[in-house]
Amino acid sequence: MSLERRYQREFVRTFFTTPTAVEGEDDSAKMLRSAVQLRGMQAPDVWVPDNEDATAPNMRDEGVENIVDVISEHGADFPGEIHPRIVWHRDDPTTRYQGFQHMLENADPSNGAIEHIDGFVIPEVGDIDDWKKADEFLTIVESEYGLEEGSLSMSVIVESGEAELAMGDLREEIGKPANNLERLFLLVDGEVDYTKDMRAMTPTGELPAWPELRHNTSRGASAAGLIAVDGPYDDIRDVEGYHARMEDNRAKGMTGIWSLTPGQVVEANRSPLPPKIGSWIMEVDGQEIELEGSEDRQVLDTDAVSLQETDEGSYSLQIGDDERRLDEDELQEELTDRVSYIPSLDDIVDSMEEFEAAKESGKGAIAVTQATTVVIDDVEIDISKERMWDEATYQAAQTPITLFQDVYEHRPDQHEELEETYGIDIVERAMNVG
Amino acid sequence: MSLERRYQREFVRTFFTTPTAVEGEDDSAKMLRSAVQLRGMQAPDVWVPDNEDATAPNMRDEGVENIVDVISEHGADFPGEIHPRIVWHRDDPTTRYQGFQHMLENADPSNGAIEHIDGFVIPEVGDIDDWKKADEFLTIVESEYGLEEGSLSMSVIVESGEAELAMGDLREEIGKPANNLERLFLLVDGEVDYTKDMRAMTPTGELPAWPELRHNTSRGASAAGLIAVDGPYDDIRDVEGYHARMEDNRAKGMTGIWSLTPGQVVEANRSPLPPKIGSWIMEVDGQEIELEGSEDRQVLDTDAVSLQETDEGSYSLQIGDDERRLDEDELQEELTDRVSYIPSLDDIVDSMEEFEAAKESGKGAIAVTQATTVVIDDVEIDISKERMWDEATYQAAQTPITLFQDVYEHRPDQHEELEETYGIDIVERAMNVG
Amino acid sequence: MSLERRYQREFVRTFFTTPTAVEGEDDSAKMLRSAVQLRGMQAPDVWVPDNEDATAPNMRDEGVENIVDVISEHGADFPGEIHPRIVWHRDDPTTRYQGFQHMLENADPSNGAIEHIDGFVIPEVGDIDDWKKADEFLTIVESEYGLEEGSLSMSVIVESGEAELAMGDLREEIGKPANNLERLFLLVDGEVDYTKDMRAMTPTGELPAWPELRHNTSRGASAAGLIAVDGPYDDIRDVEGYHARMEDNRAKGMTGIWSLTPGQVVEANRSPLPPKIGSWIMEVDGQEIELEGSEDRQVLDTDAVSLQETDEGSYSLQIGDDERRLDEDELQEELTDRVSYIPSLDDIVDSMEEFEAAKESGKGAIAVTQATTVVIDDVEIDISKERMWDEATYQAAQTPITLFQDVYEHRPDQHEELEETYGIDIVERAMNVG
Repeated sequence: MSLERRYQREFVRTFFTTPTAVEGEDDSAKMLRSAVQLRGMQAPDVWVPDNEDATAPNMRDEGVENIVDVISEHGADFPGEIHPRIVWHRDDPTTRYQGFQHMLENADPSNGAIEHIDGFVIPEVGDIDDWKKADEFLTIVESEYGLEEGSLSMSVIVESGEAELAMGDLREEIGKPANNLERLFLLVDGEVDYTKDMRAMTPTGELPAWPELRHNTSRGASAAGLIAVDGPYDDIRDVEGYHARMEDNRAKGMTGIWSLTPGQVVEANRSPLPPKIGSWIMEVDGQEIELEGSEDRQVLDTDAVSLQETDEGSYSLQIGDDERRLDEDELQEELTDRVSYIPSLDDIVDSMEEFEAAKESGKGAIAVTQATTVVIDDVEIDISKERMWDEATYQAAQTPITLFQDVYEHRPDQHEELEETYGIDIVERAMNVG
Repeated sequence: MSLERRYQREFVRTFFTTPTAVEGEDDSAKMLRSAVQLRGMQAPDVWVPDNEDATAPNMRDEGVENIVDVISEHGADFPGEIHPRIVWHRDDPTTRYQGFQHMLENADPSNGAIEHIDGFVIPEVGDIDDWKKADEFLTIVESEYGLEEGSLSMSVIVESGEAELAMGDLREEIGKPANNLERLFLLVDGEVDYTKDMRAMTPTGELPAWPELRHNTSRGASAAGLIAVDGPYDDIRDVEGYHARMEDNRAKGMTGIWSLTPGQVVEANRSPLPPKIGSWIMEVDGQEIELEGSEDRQVLDTDAVSLQETDEGSYSLQIGDDERRLDEDELQEELTDRVSYIPSLDDIVDSMEEFEAAKESGKGAIAVTQATTVVIDDVEIDISKERMWDEATYQAAQTPITLFQDVYEHRPDQHEELEETYGIDIVERAMNVG
Repeated sequence: MSLERRYQREFVRTFFTTPTAVEGEDDSAKMLRSAVQLRGMQAPDVWVPDNEDATAPNMRDEGVENIVDVISEHGADFPGEIHPRIVWHRDDPTTRYQGFQHMLENADPSNGAIEHIDGFVIPEVGDIDDWKKADEFLTIVESEYGLEEGSLSMSVIVESGEAELAMGDLREEIGKPANNLERLFLLVDGEVDYTKDMRAMTPTGELPAWPELRHNTSRGASAAGLIAVDGPYDDIRDVEGYHARMEDNRAKGMTGIWSLTPGQVVEANRSPLPPKIGSWIMEVDGQEIELEGSEDRQVLDTDAVSLQETDEGSYSLQIGDDERRLDEDELQEELTDRVSYIPSLDDIVDSMEEFEAAKESGKGAIAVTQATTVVIDDVEIDISKERMWDEATYQAAQTPITLFQDVYEHRPDQHEELEETYGIDIVERAMNVG
């Protein structure tokens, strides 16, 4: 038997934290109250009332009360899952005991919140033995209040070298009779504290990109049937940077990301979904430039590339400082190599349906062709790219569709926006393929 | 005692898969029959009749018969090793049992193929305990047919997060009395299924580069005395990209790569061998440009760099957008820093012989000098690069020579091409150094 | 209880090796005698009389005598720590026994050197069980000479795949009753031999960058309370390259680096300390260009960027081949995104003091603003960057200050140079903050 995901969601796009108690406001729970009422693309897949770093230490007892108040009142209507973050530290038993008490308070059925709480987020975990301490407290909480053992999920923030190493042991630790680690749900990177723990420094104080940590988190999630989520992206104004980070994460198998504002939630909810319209990109000096598409013509408009027909069938192509003379075939080949197609949701569904039909009729592979006319400096070149789809390609291509289906199934509040974006027809076909 | 490689080959350059049964052909074994007759640079170091993904599920029983037919008839003459891939899946006992049956059939001595089969390739492995299940079946096969225990080698395709993690445990698992994991031979990455297993996505559907996976595979091979092989490179037309990938792999210690066509086999057999002729490259804006060499002059011909002598001994050097005024010494230093020499097989043998002689006479280090005249826009500058060779440099430089010797020893069918390429003198010296 | 660093230094910037015996000199200990008398920025944090690779095999017995002579005479005055490297090999018991004998000789109290020796460096280690063999020899040495158990530290050179894997096991092995691995101090990468062990090849023979190895070393150090040090940088002339490597290392949490010459020691001692003067950099085509600062104006002088005011409030900004028309707000935003500030020691101390005061008064976060006027082609644009500092930012920013304090505390011989560089006021404030 393989390790199966034991929770409802297959994917989590967004992990949105909210301070639980803010000093100096009339209502210290104001931000919680505002967040719990988010709907649609502004509402995260996982909402995290954050009683740890986002809340001042002297406000955290009040924070627990606020969580209980707000969730008992509004939790039933919240469209995503709810996972409060409590305090914890691998090196400090006092903090761990405080976290235990906060969980007991949050989960007390007489407070009326626990039926809407899906689990807890444990920060600053260390070795796997430290993870087990948090798991044990959750087991006691469940036992104390008559909840089913393992019904509260546990997510951890990976923000130390030892927690990174612990992710390599999950598969053999989950399922041991003395723990309930099957309750694990999200592995979330916390790069600020990780940077401190690793004692890393950059000249500007910017966070390192930590590609190996993100790989190891994604791999740990994959091996143990969990979901990997990247940490906060501090520069809230920098939407382009946030998208670039998410694209890099997805190439590592890390679909989710932390969001600090409802604006970031919207971007992060949308980013992993396939585009409405397919587009062509061209690689120029290591950068990707998007072509301007209209019907079947794709215009490249950049000073970095110029193209001229010097004689009949003879071309001069300049890319950056590099100039080349090419005949028509060579030009076609060069451009075909440099351009790529980003398929739309529609395109992906088409290819999958086509492959499914082929399989039904006994074929193991189909050729998927993308053709267009590329226009550079008014010179037009027809190009055509072909890709073989076999069972493995089909299954790898399925990931964005499985994601789409997971979102559609669990987030009815986003149906309207999805249908407006893609059109009802495509949405229906996407829900039926695969 | 350290873990020693237990098999004959020290290096495997090429891992070439062939479908075992193709529907709709007169002879469903046609591709096998064609592949088994490859010779010289077209023949791989390891040939893999592929009864898994390359063959349609409903053709796989016929595939096993074809493997037996073709190998019993032609296997004795095949110049590389033969390792059929059978079906297997960490999550599916039915598939594992089917794989066992196929191995029994392949290995039955009355079928006459097993004496030419070196081992089996097991795809889709999971934890190390899953690897042990395949190992146990091989032990039973050996016992059943009176073969020496451990005589059939086992190679695995690493295409899941748990298999990646398992590679960290090999050293302590190999050699335990209850298994015969000493039979392990190749660790082969399978990036298509790995991408699916990690649920990774890229906009264009292109595979992620997975540098960490390849590092971990190479490290796992190094620590356990095995050989690391990279997965298939799908874009068969893109020879340049295939070579770039192989160069990147070699810098990670991964010498071998999957080949999908005899054309790719040729490229992958040749790529890790040192060049016949040394050459100079220059780094310009993060890219490497090869200089055009003739005798002792190396001409740089690119629009990205221009050089003028403005006054006697005073120069203007423009690289990309960056222009600098330099005197002769500064110019020499700048160019010396930017150019590098790619040594030929001849050069490497020379340096090794020189170091061996020095060591014999009691010296621990020698200086290896490479000098040339660089020509840019008709301006000529003499440059000279010196490198210290000590015992460690010597041993690191030995890797391409050890590879060359391994190829020459085990692939007599490639002697002619090697001697044509390098000349018989260099080949002989390369076989005697180190 | 978490794993605490058990040794005095929190950081080690420099690991400087010196041959112990050079043939053909009047005094074979000449280099040792010269190195032990280094002071100030030329003296390393850790000095390593190298009786392994830097010393010819036939000179190593003499090398041990030289170590004893030189350290007994000069060791008391050496400002850094002293850690001789002895011979060792995971695959060769003869070499290990020789290393044991050399340690016994070095540590014999009647030789008068051991009171100045802080520990030993063990090269070529393998599995954790191999590390334990060296640890056991050190325990015997301590027992034999009545030294406190665990008082001699042990540093290892990680130069094999199995040693890289062993770093993942340190946390659970340190503290087991049957070993004294708490004596571990430095994890030092040895990329030349690692490259050989991994059988990696590059066209020019240059070493691969091995980012994953360095990450794993840094993580291993972080998880076990040790210090990570990068291996030698061979191209001694290439000061710029050495600094780039150190900056890359620090972003991985690896603060220290090997030094081969006193010149490299100076660079490596200074490199991790914050600059005296803050500066602005701008990202252009993936490269960082430093602006020329004077008062509150920062001039960008590069042909790669040009800026013109085309009409009142309308601008044309060209970066590389990319030209854009922007209004004043867009221009300001674009430049704000592209420039970054590298804070000086003074700036970091200021921000930390400000945050500490805010925390005292009950605030959990402050905004730190950096403003300047950027000048491109005589056009002036005011920009202002703001960053939130909370507890986590504060703690991450503390790393360079902790480093500074560690250096100041343990290296009185560098006080004069530090005070000359930064001024006595800043040095005092830096020693009192945090």
